[in-house]
Amino acid sequence: MSLLIKNGTIVTASDIYNGDIYIEKGKISEIGLEISKEADEIVDVKGKYVIPGGVDVHTHFNLDVGIAIANDDFYTGTLAAACGGTTTIVDHMGFGPKGCNLKHQVDIYHKYAEDNAVIDYSFHGVIQHINQDILEEMKSIVEDEGISSFKAYLTYDYKIDDEDMVKIFKRLRELGGITTVHCENHGSIKYLKDKYVKEGLKSSIYHYLSRPEESEGEAVNRMINIAKISGNSPLYIVHLSTKLGLDYIKMARERGQKIYAETCPQYLILDKEKYELDNNEGLKYIMSPPLRERHNCNELWKGINEGYIQTVATDHCPFSFSKDKQLGKDDFTKCPNGAPGVEERIPLIFSEGVMKGNISINKFVEVCSTNPAKIFGLYPKKGTIQVGSDGDLVVIDPNKEVILTKDKLHSNVDYTAYEGIKVKGYPIITISNGEIIYNEGKFKGKKGRGRFIKRNRANLI
Amino acid sequence: MSLLIKNGTIVTASDIYNGDIYIEKGKISEIGLEISKEADEIVDVKGKYVIPGGVDVHTHFNLDVGIAIANDDFYTGTLAAACGGTTTIVDHMGFGPKGCNLKHQVDIYHKYAEDNAVIDYSFHGVIQHINQDILEEMKSIVEDEGISSFKAYLTYDYKIDDEDMVKIFKRLRELGGITTVHCENHGSIKYLKDKYVKEGLKSSIYHYLSRPEESEGEAVNRMINIAKISGNSPLYIVHLSTKLGLDYIKMARERGQKIYAETCPQYLILDKEKYELDNNEGLKYIMSPPLRERHNCNELWKGINEGYIQTVATDHCPFSFSKDKQLGKDDFTKCPNGAPGVEERIPLIFSEGVMKGNISINKFVEVCSTNPAKIFGLYPKKGTIQVGSDGDLVVIDPNKEVILTKDKLHSNVDYTAYEGIKVKGYPIITISNGEIIYNEGKFKGKKGRGRFIKRNRANLI
Amino acid sequence: MSLLIKNGTIVTASDIYNGDIYIEKGKISEIGLEISKEADEIVDVKGKYVIPGGVDVHTHFNLDVGIAIANDDFYTGTLAAACGGTTTIVDHMGFGPKGCNLKHQVDIYHKYAEDNAVIDYSFHGVIQHINQDILEEMKSIVEDEGISSFKAYLTYDYKIDDEDMVKIFKRLRELGGITTVHCENHGSIKYLKDKYVKEGLKSSIYHYLSRPEESEGEAVNRMINIAKISGNSPLYIVHLSTKLGLDYIKMARERGQKIYAETCPQYLILDKEKYELDNNEGLKYIMSPPLRERHNCNELWKGINEGYIQTVATDHCPFSFSKDKQLGKDDFTKCPNGAPGVEERIPLIFSEGVMKGNISINKFVEVCSTNPAKIFGLYPKKGTIQVGSDGDLVVIDPNKEVILTKDKLHSNVDYTAYEGIKVKGYPIITISNGEIIYNEGKFKGKKGRGRFIKRNRANLI
Amino acid sequence: MSLLIKNGTIVTASDIYNGDIYIEKGKISEIGLEISKEADEIVDVKGKYVIPGGVDVHTHFNLDVGIAIANDDFYTGTLAAACGGTTTIVDHMGFGPKGCNLKHQVDIYHKYAEDNAVIDYSFHGVIQHINQDILEEMKSIVEDEGISSFKAYLTYDYKIDDEDMVKIFKRLRELGGITTVHCENHGSIKYLKDKYVKEGLKSSIYHYLSRPEESEGEAVNRMINIAKISGNSPLYIVHLSTKLGLDYIKMARERGQKIYAETCPQYLILDKEKYELDNNEGLKYIMSPPLRERHNCNELWKGINEGYIQTVATDHCPFSFSKDKQLGKDDFTKCPNGAPGVEERIPLIFSEGVMKGNISINKFVEVCSTNPAKIFGLYPKKGTIQVGSDGDLVVIDPNKEVILTKDKLHSNVDYTAYEGIKVKGYPIITISNGEIIYNEGKFKGKKGRGRFIKRNRANLI
Repeated sequence: MSLLIKNGTIVTASDIYNGDIYIEKGKISEIGLEISKEADEIVDVKGKYVIPGGVDVHTHFNLDVGIAIANDDFYTGTLAAACGGTTTIVDHMGFGPKGCNLKHQVDIYHKYAEDNAVIDYSFHGVIQHINQDILEEMKSIVEDEGISSFKAYLTYDYKIDDEDMVKIFKRLRELGGITTVHCENHGSIKYLKDKYVKEGLKSSIYHYLSRPEESEGEAVNRMINIAKISGNSPLYIVHLSTKLGLDYIKMARERGQKIYAETCPQYLILDKEKYELDNNEGLKYIMSPPLRERHNCNELWKGINEGYIQTVATDHCPFSFSKDKQLGKDDFTKCPNGAPGVEERIPLIFSEGVMKGNISINKFVEVCSTNPAKIFGLYPKKGTIQVGSDGDLVVIDPNKEVILTKDKLHSNVDYTAYEGIKVKGYPIITISNGEIIYNEGKFKGKKGRGRFIKRNRANLI
Repeated sequence: MSLLIKNGTIVTASDIYNGDIYIEKGKISEIGLEISKEADEIVDVKGKYVIPGGVDVHTHFNLDVGIAIANDDFYTGTLAAACGGTTTIVDHMGFGPKGCNLKHQVDIYHKYAEDNAVIDYSFHGVIQHINQDILEEMKSIVEDEGISSFKAYLTYDYKIDDEDMVKIFKRLRELGGITTVHCENHGSIKYLKDKYVKEGLKSSIYHYLSRPEESEGEAVNRMINIAKISGNSPLYIVHLSTKLGLDYIKMARERGQKIYAETCPQYLILDKEKYELDNNEGLKYIMSPPLRERHNCNELWKGINEGYIQTVATDHCPFSFSKDKQLGKDDFTKCPNGAPGVEERIPLIFSEGVMKGNISINKFVEVCSTNPAKIFGLYPKKGTIQVGSDGDLVVIDPNKEVILTKDKLHSNVDYTAYEGIKVKGYPIITISNGEIIYNEGKFKGKKGRGRFIKRNRANLI
Repeated sequence: MSLLIKNGTIVTASDIYNGDIYIEKGKISEIGLEISKEADEIVDVKGKYVIPGGVDVHTHFNLDVGIAIANDDFYTGTLAAACGGTTTIVDHMGFGPKGCNLKHQVDIYHKYAEDNAVIDYSFHGVIQHINQDILEEMKSIVEDEGISSFKAYLTYDYKIDDEDMVKIFKRLRELGGITTVHCENHGSIKYLKDKYVKEGLKSSIYHYLSRPEESEGEAVNRMINIAKISGNSPLYIVHLSTKLGLDYIKMARERGQKIYAETCPQYLILDKEKYELDNNEGLKYIMSPPLRERHNCNELWKGINEGYIQTVATDHCPFSFSKDKQLGKDDFTKCPNGAPGVEERIPLIFSEGVMKGNISINKFVEVCSTNPAKIFGLYPKKGTIQVGSDGDLVVIDPNKEVILTKDKLHSNVDYTAYEGIKVKGYPIITISNGEIIYNEGKFKGKKGRGRFIKRNRANLI
Repeated sequence: MSLLIKNGTIVTASDIYNGDIYIEKGKISEIGLEISKEADEIVDVKGKYVIPGGVDVHTHFNLDVGIAIANDDFYTGTLAAACGGTTTIVDHMGFGPKGCNLKHQVDIYHKYAEDNAVIDYSFHGVIQHINQDILEEMKSIVEDEGISSFKAYLTYDYKIDDEDMVKIFKRLRELGGITTVHCENHGSIKYLKDKYVKEGLKSSIYHYLSRPEESEGEAVNRMINIAKISGNSPLYIVHLSTKLGLDYIKMARERGQKIYAETCPQYLILDKEKYELDNNEGLKYIMSPPLRERHNCNELWKGINEGYIQTVATDHCPFSFSKDKQLGKDDFTKCPNGAPGVEERIPLIFSEGVMKGNISINKFVEVCSTNPAKIFGLYPKKGTIQVGSDGDLVVIDPNKEVILTKDKLHSNVDYTAYEGIKVKGYPIITISNGEIIYNEGKFKGKKGRGRFIKRNRANLI
């Protein structure tokens, strides 16, 4: 199978130029000024951008949070991703039964994904507890399973304490892996939640009020220091939402630490006003960390530009508004946390970022594709356009205007957090391993065509 | 009883001038250019500085740490203080039996102090656990007992978690009290201690290595954020030892938080080289936090000058080198933590600070007397020289040179951490409530003459 | 002559306490809890604050700017000062004939002031040009004339270039004097003024637009670096108006430089909206630097609290609105620069600062009296309340509310920049050298009673 | 003509991968995994890095400084460049006769370069004075001549004052050009030079002492503010040498300004110790700004990594040690300023930067090729490896070790500033427009083969 893409404006994290791309057996085999070879399929994309397929390193497909199950599985979730210009996802695995080993969830997630995923995928390991067995098992997970990153939570049921965090950081550094952390201060959030509930203050805005900016800032900075103590280990902070957290990251990078931060479209584009919408619409935005005051958005864009934030992922975690989210109707603490976004990411960051002048088109590629691929050991297979890389490409029409509404989107959930936002610039073709799987507004790939990617060591940019 | 001090160079936190001071019934009743009234006693201190008596808000007399008991009780400890130019101490109470209420230790400490102390004194309450009873009891401790500050530890046996810290901060803010915190990250220190012990690395330097700068910095910043979450409550950080902690304090004060920091002579003057002395001399310096790398000293002096550090106290906690400290001879974790210093503080800060040009003489008075008195509700009785204040004064001879050695000092312990250091400028007269209790190298006061001072609300400078 | 002030709440830069003050032969001779001595005059000020008389180190009496003459001479100007709670002024001398020596203006200003001033006064020397003679003459001006500070302008007719600034800084450092500088970038302001005039844009707002924040910031930082190059000489920046300038000062102080900054009530309280008032009212606010955007006000208050700004003076420079200011009616460049304020300073800073919680009452005394006196060698005669100091005191009634209007004020100019502002707390008695010169709303002193004060070396706080 | 480069490890500013490159008619026409097409010449570079040819945007060929003439003309200078892995230079033109127009020097430089240069080249315009004619002429220089950048000096004979700088910034912004500035404070340097000469202090170290760090810092920050005032115009700072200047750049970029900074190998690698070498060797390092204290080197590397410094150029300005430099033997002020470096840049930054772990290989390409090409409008012809770009490539052997000595280098000067430094990694093949001009240690190109490149507008990264 071969595919020839003609006349694209090819964009990488540092370059932009016109050329043709030839993909053979799923890999880019040639980039030329004018390729005249035969091909099984030829598409002319003159006037359009060709970017490396999006890499979303933070999704939650099939996630069971006890009170509800995320509405997307690996089929609907990756299909939505593909339709939105993303060609690789790395899913954060959910918790298994208490005390289970690491392999347990790996096996389950393989079952979830195979025969379902329509694009390539990997998983982040999840840490539920630490003991000598788990620390030893990490080696085979990283080296044999090709899962070189793990996530620890500082809040929720399986929160990890500082002593165990030291052990994780040291172990993963040793193995060439990377530790990702959900940074929120547990104690203060618990205090505030209990207090509000006791006082009968249970509408969506109290979700926001019970997770103040300092609860994120504190935890971010704690992990920064614990990572330093743990042999100056690398740390990847998921879903950063505040200027305060960003300030601590700046300080740490200036001291020479290897700290990486991810933010998400919701923190760049939406703000806490959403929690005060009528008709319980605030429930749609119950996620942790919550949306913040508007000024944080600007600071996060600045953080991207200055290089303190390296990736934009989604934390895609879809619960239906009509049913799941209504669990929190009378009490925010009962509402499943999370919102969809895997399909909207590329359009939103392109439109709000590039078209509005917040970031350059190279920076867009860097944070949406290249950096996530590098940090999580997918590069150079994924994340760039160069010979030898996988044929994962997305064509963006910079002039296509779309008003985002649930109807046009493909996630198996009943709402979008970005309803009514008009974007300029939209992915029109998605190519995965040399196969056009999305075109002319339609998904054309086969269920289960996606492959699990064994990941390498982190490439600490 | 009246006392007339003639011809002094009187120094306050902002002023310096020549004058006479008249003390009547223990209080300063008059300051004049030339007072010719009669008096029971008249001293001429021409060419000498008269400063407000030192206020040391961090001592540990009678402290029982299980494996050893601090060698000073309220008699020998306050006597040493008096001989070193300190006229008020606020002692940090030790822990009582598990589960005891707050009043329990207050009663015990009153017994320790009365009939023993030779200068005025107060106590900081200590928090061992938090529940509704304790929170309610705080009111009477603050309002009836006159103890308006409490200490929480983030490490050791009775470490307080973040949720309880929120409760403490909020409650004390409500009561007009102030929360003081021993800031060290428990988990990472525990990890490192266990690791070193397991590896057989047990000499004094491993005490230092098991408590890295980041373990202090982390905890300082955690408390800053918890205090903010808790209604922007005031926070007083005891014994700050690092630039890193200081950096977080600066950030917080620039954001408008009321954060107060105390450092100690040992962190300003000594450094971690001490842990590598021969003959196990490093044991003398086993304290928490530990001595740091030298560059921190300079930063702490700078922090004092820039107003980010408001007080210098001692954390006086004397264990004998010949016996107590030897418990750690083969294993640093078995060594009782702490070092003496209550007598050396004023001479050291005057000599190393004022005489060496690191701080002005006004700043010296501010951090050694005025600010501690203000922050802990002792002002205006204590901490300054003005009419109406207690007659607590110290005369410093700026030309007197002394080489510090154990022999010349009065603490009931067998070493000084500052052995051999030459100071220029030394307290020669100490006056407490209008009575000369130290003069001509001799202590002249009566055992038990000191009074408990009920403290007011914190004066948040 | 003796004066006894009973029952005041006495405030200094660091203290606050109740007591009586006895003034004899113009000097404070005694401060007592309860003074019962006889006195020629006794005033009871129970419930009122007694502060050190205000020290305004930036006035322009008798100033001839060519197109107009400041409406206050040393009589009306110092009378207004006295009525507003200021007991010492240091006037910035105007320029003399081109090429004149330093003594020339000193002599002229002595003539202006003697037989006119009603409070004590001094002058800042002014630098018009630099050559070997001037550098040598500085010695006698500092040592014989008692004028230990000079001002250089970086814009206007006698702007000093960087090379000459090096010479000034080095010379004054050698002599123990201090260099004060009007910091605005000349070239960019000239460009903008010329441009606006050429384009016919000549209303008051273009005064503001022609002096952007960066024109101050640039010049502040230039002087900081030139002062460093000149042997790390002290630098006093007059009338700081911007956060940008403040940022550079912070950086410099953190690098250890001795930089002092003065701001003025207008920059703390008013903003550039004034330039857009109807009826040419904007002309009242044409001063250099101009009023700024509002956010700068908050930053300047913060700068005061953090100790980066040490003094608040007025730059009192009164031109009549009805006549002088109208010169700029059709062209802002023709409007004499300056505004009155010597009488409003103490009420405004007390009300907007202390009563509104922006600064403590000690900080108020520090920046309005103590620091200016220290920095300019007037201390301890002026700037504090202690025995031996001059009997310059002001009584403030914290409950007196006044709406500022021209009618109530005493400057010989026809407007106040603060018309209609309601202040809470107002000076009700002014005492100069032990004489009550203002009381019950009336000035009672004699014309010419003020004395020239020979100043000492700067006291580099 | 066609050239096929096989099996290289191709490096761009963001990527690294293996592949073949095909160059046809001087342009890269194809990049492939395995190109099997015929070619006039084929080189196999397995195990070697293929980077975009170096772009040195700061050279001074043919420069006449009055007392001496730079020893390299466009033939020897570009030949040295080529042998060191640089394929494009942008030369800073020297001054013409007083009052000459801009075209005057452009014409002269075209004569210097054509028939001489062996690689492609451009010029930066130079500003000697500003008036309406010059401002108007700029348009044709930018648009017709293709010279879209100009340099202004803040010191030396043709220093530009702040008012004229505003005019330059505004005009070039309007034209899409960019202003480059030599930032040193003239007045303070003049003062110090005069002083040292007068005191007979004339050895090389006084060159260093007469140009303190603050003289650079001041000027950098002045230009930052003038650029802001001038409609937020872009500013490119040449040869940054200090942490202080870097600090101001950081502040400005955080405020959102478009500030670009260049440093040079000498400021990254050498320090001021050189001025104290025996035998007048210090003369070799007389350049402006001078070498600095060592700690600045580390800060500059950090500035590169954090993105605050975007380019590394050389300021190549070769004067013979045996003759030209000896003019300064008895008086540093008589020594022609400058040092060679055009050939050493790529080896030094690769070895000291990449091989020693200071920067990544992508960052190396970014600062040595891509960014200079982008900022100065040479991109995408120059500065990257992609189809459509010029066939300017350099092959680096990462294992080749070379001890730098004058003998091995090609500049027409008699010394290298880096004598004896051992580098690991060295350019072994240089390709210009598809022609191998350096290989096997020999230059093989034809004199005059280089072409003048008309440059586009700056690409403000």
